[in-house]
Amino acid sequence: MFQLFTATTRPSDGPPRLAALRAELSKRGLTGFLVPRSDAHQGEYVSAHDERLSWLTGFTGSAGFCVVLPEIAGVFVDGRYRLQVKDQVALSDFTPVDWPEVGAAEWLAEHAPKNAVIGFDPWLHTPDEIARIEGGLKGTGITLAPQAENPLDAAWTNQPAPSSGRVRPHPMSLAGKTGAEKRLELAAELRVAGVSATVITLADSLAWLMNWRGSDIIRNPVVQGFAVLHDDARLDLFIDPDKVRLIPEEDGVTRHAVSAFPDALRALNGATRFDPATAPVAVKSALADGVAGADPCLMAKAIKNEAELEGMRAAHRRDGAALIEFLSWFDAHALDGLTEIDMAKKLEECRSATGLLMDLSFDTISSTGPNAAVIHYRVTEETNRKLQPGDLFLLDSGGQYPDGTTDITRTIPVGVVDAERRDAYTRVLKGMIAVSRARFPKGVAGGHLDALARYPLWLAGQDYDHGTGHGVGAALSVHEGPIRISRASTLPLQPGMILSNEPGYYRPGAFGIRIENLIVVREAGPLGDNRKMLDFETITLCPIDKRLIVPSMLSADEIAWLDGYHAWVETELASEVKPDARQWLARACAPL
Amino acid sequence: MFQLFTATTRPSDGPPRLAALRAELSKRGLTGFLVPRSDAHQGEYVSAHDERLSWLTGFTGSAGFCVVLPEIAGVFVDGRYRLQVKDQVALSDFTPVDWPEVGAAEWLAEHAPKNAVIGFDPWLHTPDEIARIEGGLKGTGITLAPQAENPLDAAWTNQPAPSSGRVRPHPMSLAGKTGAEKRLELAAELRVAGVSATVITLADSLAWLMNWRGSDIIRNPVVQGFAVLHDDARLDLFIDPDKVRLIPEEDGVTRHAVSAFPDALRALNGATRFDPATAPVAVKSALADGVAGADPCLMAKAIKNEAELEGMRAAHRRDGAALIEFLSWFDAHALDGLTEIDMAKKLEECRSATGLLMDLSFDTISSTGPNAAVIHYRVTEETNRKLQPGDLFLLDSGGQYPDGTTDITRTIPVGVVDAERRDAYTRVLKGMIAVSRARFPKGVAGGHLDALARYPLWLAGQDYDHGTGHGVGAALSVHEGPIRISRASTLPLQPGMILSNEPGYYRPGAFGIRIENLIVVREAGPLGDNRKMLDFETITLCPIDKRLIVPSMLSADEIAWLDGYHAWVETELASEVKPDARQWLARACAPL
Repeated sequence: MFQLFTATTRPSDGPPRLAALRAELSKRGLTGFLVPRSDAHQGEYVSAHDERLSWLTGFTGSAGFCVVLPEIAGVFVDGRYRLQVKDQVALSDFTPVDWPEVGAAEWLAEHAPKNAVIGFDPWLHTPDEIARIEGGLKGTGITLAPQAENPLDAAWTNQPAPSSGRVRPHPMSLAGKTGAEKRLELAAELRVAGVSATVITLADSLAWLMNWRGSDIIRNPVVQGFAVLHDDARLDLFIDPDKVRLIPEEDGVTRHAVSAFPDALRALNGATRFDPATAPVAVKSALADGVAGADPCLMAKAIKNEAELEGMRAAHRRDGAALIEFLSWFDAHALDGLTEIDMAKKLEECRSATGLLMDLSFDTISSTGPNAAVIHYRVTEETNRKLQPGDLFLLDSGGQYPDGTTDITRTIPVGVVDAERRDAYTRVLKGMIAVSRARFPKGVAGGHLDALARYPLWLAGQDYDHGTGHGVGAALSVHEGPIRISRASTLPLQPGMILSNEPGYYRPGAFGIRIENLIVVREAGPLGDNRKMLDFETITLCPIDKRLIVPSMLSADEIAWLDGYHAWVETELASEVKPDARQWLARACAPL
Repeated sequence: MFQLFTATTRPSDGPPRLAALRAELSKRGLTGFLVPRSDAHQGEYVSAHDERLSWLTGFTGSAGFCVVLPEIAGVFVDGRYRLQVKDQVALSDFTPVDWPEVGAAEWLAEHAPKNAVIGFDPWLHTPDEIARIEGGLKGTGITLAPQAENPLDAAWTNQPAPSSGRVRPHPMSLAGKTGAEKRLELAAELRVAGVSATVITLADSLAWLMNWRGSDIIRNPVVQGFAVLHDDARLDLFIDPDKVRLIPEEDGVTRHAVSAFPDALRALNGATRFDPATAPVAVKSALADGVAGADPCLMAKAIKNEAELEGMRAAHRRDGAALIEFLSWFDAHALDGLTEIDMAKKLEECRSATGLLMDLSFDTISSTGPNAAVIHYRVTEETNRKLQPGDLFLLDSGGQYPDGTTDITRTIPVGVVDAERRDAYTRVLKGMIAVSRARFPKGVAGGHLDALARYPLWLAGQDYDHGTGHGVGAALSVHEGPIRISRASTLPLQPGMILSNEPGYYRPGAFGIRIENLIVVREAGPLGDNRKMLDFETITLCPIDKRLIVPSMLSADEIAWLDGYHAWVETELASEVKPDARQWLARACAPL
């Protein structure tokens, strides 16, 4: 099993660790210290070596930070984690803070003594982040001070070593482009931009650029390391040699120890780009002539080529068949006393049975009844709940396969479900279909399409407090920037981009609904006035539960889309599943 | 009649005037000169005194500019005016340029000699505009030079005097707030922003702030003048004394001659805000400590108070009744050989019959058949076309009343209309209904809602090349910033804002369709999860032609909205129209 359901931290561990950290701060003459969730690569997950926030506080959420002062330690968490943090930290010593309503600077201004000096590790924060805090501290007399040695690491006596997960090559058949080609293309961009080099610090950027896949952290086959790409396409790579011992050296790529990275940055004398939103402050500080600009891998990686898309399609066929095996089993056993953990385990079994599952793409959200209203719910032994008749079962999950990354959500009824839930489900489905069917001119961004997904809910005074969709990596991170379907996103959609389409609805204490497919932006076929338009190809294959639909709420066009989708799913996957599942699939895919 | 249908310029006038301007340029040692459409107040219309572009070139469009060089004179016009410009200018002497595809700087770099000095009048261009051109000229050796005296005005021997249209007070019953209250509120904003004064140069800002309405230019009851509002709420006003002779002086407002404005700007010694998007360059240059920032009247004016809304509602009831008289007459005479001019005249008659029409709010777009595909079409004797069976008649018009400004578009069939036109009409209507019915959380901007209006067209490979809606002034300019329903707009909608909702569809050479109501943003009533949401109140009252609808393309909800709208229109206006029109109205408002 990849997924664990036990708690990894204990509240009682926090206070002595906090005392040890404070002792280190005194030694260094620091008033306080910032402890972020992030590592130097700013990904969603961190390795055991970088679990500083959970080691110190017990809080295991995927975002947040702690600000330690002599008399108080604030644990800053967002709306998703307000309940969880209270269970995970020792409230005697740690004070949860509602973030981002209260920011670090504002909180420091209230709680820190005048002239306080607050340390931070310049490898764990971005320039944008530090600039924001320093901006907020203006006039307070409180200052931030980068620390060459992290005092928390000094207090953490049995800190695991940095990960040295082996790297495997990502073959050309799946990457579609050699690393050398990618370096040449990006180098040309650098020359146009007038910079002589760019620093790369994001682990998924590095994996994409090198055509490598790694195992430094769970759920994401990224490669932790640093690189400097020069405008002549040479690459200096800073990586633990153990990770890449078995990978042949490549022309144009020079490998160095990670420890050589800071000096190498200091030695660069041309204009060098760094990404102020994602690079460590330490990178900016080391550059003689740093120029702020986006990591050039971000956009190049977001636009998938045909080989990457083919890999993703194959992974989705395989994953869809596993889901269908699961759903067919589920319908037969829903009322046998199954729990959320039982279902997460069974689903992982079905995926593992494909023989190609390398990892989950994130911890499965197996949530029932009121638990499904907690948007980022992860079942543990403590919260585990048994299915009840009338429940909705919300299942959001995905797999990492050699050829692709999947992410799918389905919501399934248990027995007879009331009208309120079916009404909300049908509205969510209408929004999800509206995005799936969308056709739109070039220049349209995710921020322009977001309302299409929410409109049926809005009309009923309902909404959901998350984005409609996120970018998805091709055999990489399941949450991949910079593209999103969200009101905040103004980047035009481009052919080859892969997004999730996942509207939902949540009633606290009662139920949660989400329906999610992955979609690919493509050039739309000719129609109407032959304007250059884009549309979406759906790549997720799995029936959408029809038992929860109120048919009279769907238009003829919406029904046609759903029936067409189901016909396609059945055609593609009937031969890929076992006979029981095949019968189930035929029923699930029958026209509405 | 307010509207004229004759050409106001002749191509043959251009060449001698161009020669005269070039002679003035030589005298001053200038290589070239920029001739914009704008005046110092950057409105959509200019007075006869400021018609420099049309005087010089013959081009009468509402946007564009001319760049004069010794051997060539480029007339820059956007997509709306590409055909019109060729008819209006002498092509022997003037060269139309496709703008914004080609910008002034790019064109100068190609056509002007190295080290050319291009003059401009610093009262007629904004800092943003000049910065853009200067940015594009970097490295070319070509420079821009502000001219204290405009050489075109020197060449224009019989230039009309600046307008001195009388000002009338806009009563408190319609303004809802005294000028003194407005000044106090804006002064408080200035203090928060840390500036000691702000310059006001927009004519509609000045009219709003003073609770005055003017007659300097047609179609817009704005007041041309300048003002400096201080952070203690005192106002220095620079205005032709003739305009305001009959208006009593007010405490806190000091009147000066317009000629005193530049010296008064130079005398300001605190931080002074100017709007780089709308103020003249000359204002920026005169300020010792200028701070760029938006004109504070813009947002205050966009959010209408209850008195302004009541005035707008009353104007729309009156205007709707006039429209109904017109449409009832039209249906009886559509095939009697009517022309576009006949209909524009008749409509103006119906509005004048209210006894309260002060002006049109813009020249009526009375367009039939292929003329309706020209989005900004204005009929002249030359283009005037007779209605044909099978035509669509697109009528976009509005009135200026003492209490409000209207803007409405209806598309009407003449005889039997083909399926293609009815399909497109129904898609346009679906989009227009989607916006009308929208309910959305606070924070949503026009850019987020725009796709709702276009989605039914997009699905058919169709679209329209204009925004979905613009802000509308309350007894002020019919096009009022800064709010729009357009992909480019990210300003959150707020209760009290008035917008047009006007999707359309245009097939060049064949037909055009547009349906437009005005809508007001308001707090939505309780529904669903009691989230704080907004929705729209429709204030335009006039039947939407049902003969063009394909009923099977509408959902039950859309039909319910339309029937509800029509029931409301009939209830409100049946008693306000003559018996013939009342019968027509009953048929037009019967449920679909």
